[in-house]
Amino acid sequence: MPELRKDPLVGRWVIVATERTRRPNDFSDHQNYASEPPINPFAAGNEHLTPPEIFAIREPGSSPNGPGWKVRVVPNKFPVLRVEGALEKEGEGIYDHMSGIGAHEVVIETPRHDCQLEEQPLDGIASVMETYRSRIADLLKDTRLRYILVFKNFGREAGATMSHPHSQIIATPVTPTAVKQKLNGAQAYFERKERSIFSDILKQELKEARRVVYQNAAFVCFCPYASRFPFELCIMPRRQSPDFFRIESNEILQLADALKVSLLKLRRGLNQPQYNYLIHTAPARFSKKDYWTTIDQDYRWHIEVTPRLTQIAGFEVGTGFYVNPVPPEDAAQFLKDVEV
Amino acid sequence: MPELRKDPLVGRWVIVATERTRRPNDFSDHQNYASEPPINPFAAGNEHLTPPEIFAIREPGSSPNGPGWKVRVVPNKFPVLRVEGALEKEGEGIYDHMSGIGAHEVVIETPRHDCQLEEQPLDGIASVMETYRSRIADLLKDTRLRYILVFKNFGREAGATMSHPHSQIIATPVTPTAVKQKLNGAQAYFERKERSIFSDILKQELKEARRVVYQNAAFVCFCPYASRFPFELCIMPRRQSPDFFRIESNEILQLADALKVSLLKLRRGLNQPQYNYLIHTAPARFSKKDYWTTIDQDYRWHIEVTPRLTQIAGFEVGTGFYVNPVPPEDAAQFLKDVEV
Repeated sequence: MPELRKDPLVGRWVIVATERTRRPNDFSDHQNYASEPPINPFAAGNEHLTPPEIFAIREPGSSPNGPGWKVRVVPNKFPVLRVEGALEKEGEGIYDHMSGIGAHEVVIETPRHDCQLEEQPLDGIASVMETYRSRIADLLKDTRLRYILVFKNFGREAGATMSHPHSQIIATPVTPTAVKQKLNGAQAYFERKERSIFSDILKQELKEARRVVYQNAAFVCFCPYASRFPFELCIMPRRQSPDFFRIESNEILQLADALKVSLLKLRRGLNQPQYNYLIHTAPARFSKKDYWTTIDQDYRWHIEVTPRLTQIAGFEVGTGFYVNPVPPEDAAQFLKDVEV
Repeated sequence: MPELRKDPLVGRWVIVATERTRRPNDFSDHQNYASEPPINPFAAGNEHLTPPEIFAIREPGSSPNGPGWKVRVVPNKFPVLRVEGALEKEGEGIYDHMSGIGAHEVVIETPRHDCQLEEQPLDGIASVMETYRSRIADLLKDTRLRYILVFKNFGREAGATMSHPHSQIIATPVTPTAVKQKLNGAQAYFERKERSIFSDILKQELKEARRVVYQNAAFVCFCPYASRFPFELCIMPRRQSPDFFRIESNEILQLADALKVSLLKLRRGLNQPQYNYLIHTAPARFSKKDYWTTIDQDYRWHIEVTPRLTQIAGFEVGTGFYVNPVPPEDAAQFLKDVEV
């Protein structure tokens, strides 16, 4: 059973993922620890090689766990957290841990091995976004879960172990530290100013214009003022809403467009770099505690896209202090000029 | 001039290092962007290839910037922050920035290219520790500086661009976010319990023993309860002291021993993995503000050693939520059994 453990000093929860445990000796071979299986379980026709599907967008008349799908969601075969079991919380001297209850799903974005997300037509990308929306809404029904993380690792150095286009969903019984920091920051700003910080950021970005890479009717894509990574991008909705799963149908197509343009610009301008993206959305809210009274006004979901063009050095992980060698204004100008 | 920029939501400072700026096009070649210079400027006899030395431990009678040194500190040729200039702070709409005042130094740990830190005799490692101590004490005299980061990147994926054994020192005009979190956590614990959390952690680790890898008269080396990475190690002094630079002479030799054993165990047990280490020490304190009244009792300097055996995935950087596939108890047992 996986376990969640809390750092007693900074309050950060870590997953000790026993399901993925390898023997210490396995780590001696630095190259081959995560080689891909010889047969691709994510390709069309190989549906029997994955656990049974949880969700799919399919051609009318096609059967679950057979071909005929556009997007398919299956449990991760090596999950970091498990749905089964009770959420037990316990102290151990000064330490705290809880059972590793949660979910870990794989979103297979297309049956085609050779078609990356940004190469799909708009409606294909929209289907992937619709899948995210639907899975988040479904997972939030489980009151043991606090946060639903949706993210994509593209490329081995970005954390991907399979090259077939896919993204992942991890549902956790705690809210991650960095998410709490964003929520607290947004709330503090609102208390001081009676305005959403996201709205103020968007206004200033649109006015200054020099960090904006792309915009459409519903989204603005820009290089954040304090970007941690070269060519980091933020895709922010124009409409105030804390929850990704409340995205509206017309916004889904606009998001597909913003994401396609952003990723294509990275791909063409920077020679197909490895990257991650991550949907920052608000945690589950089951009660009307004071803490949450302004969240609908102060917090806004958004997507962070982080190309992996530089190594993440030790002091950056240890101190949260990042060195970015490319001014965001230069990065934005460069990406704006890439034709897609 | 490099610049420090603050993320308006989470308050994290980022260095936009204009001195290292490469043109966006340079990023298209993912492999060769940081190739080593053809002649090693860190080797004995090549002293003229570095900027003039700031500090050195030398044979009696040898001259600065010539051979005869054991450890040598020089300014980084491509510094992320600069000593020269005034510390200007300014707002820019909702954003805040300040001039990139600070220091960026390279500690060349030995004249020999082929002798990694853990392969040095104890007195060689002690000289490197003494160099850290001396540089921190000196840099703290500059009242513009708030924090002195001492760290080592070993291996390319860990962020190293030179293979000659070296570590780095970055002095910053702000305290990094993750350091503030540790300080706040320690202070809150002390307020509640009237005890140092570091003392409680050490007591529990020594009592449970199953995460302890090595100990000597002055230091305990253990795999932290909530380790983010497989085989992560913490080297903690037994004596309460917030500041690394107040380490005593007899402790320096003990630290050299603890570090040598820890790094050798990683090297022999895990086939010379890439790694980072980082000295967590308290920030500069120029006034007796309330905030600091208990720091001498509540905070303790320590070293984090993080092998890079797994990729750092996107959601880990974005959320601070780490997945560790090796229980720290298993990691400790494995390392304890490695003979050095």
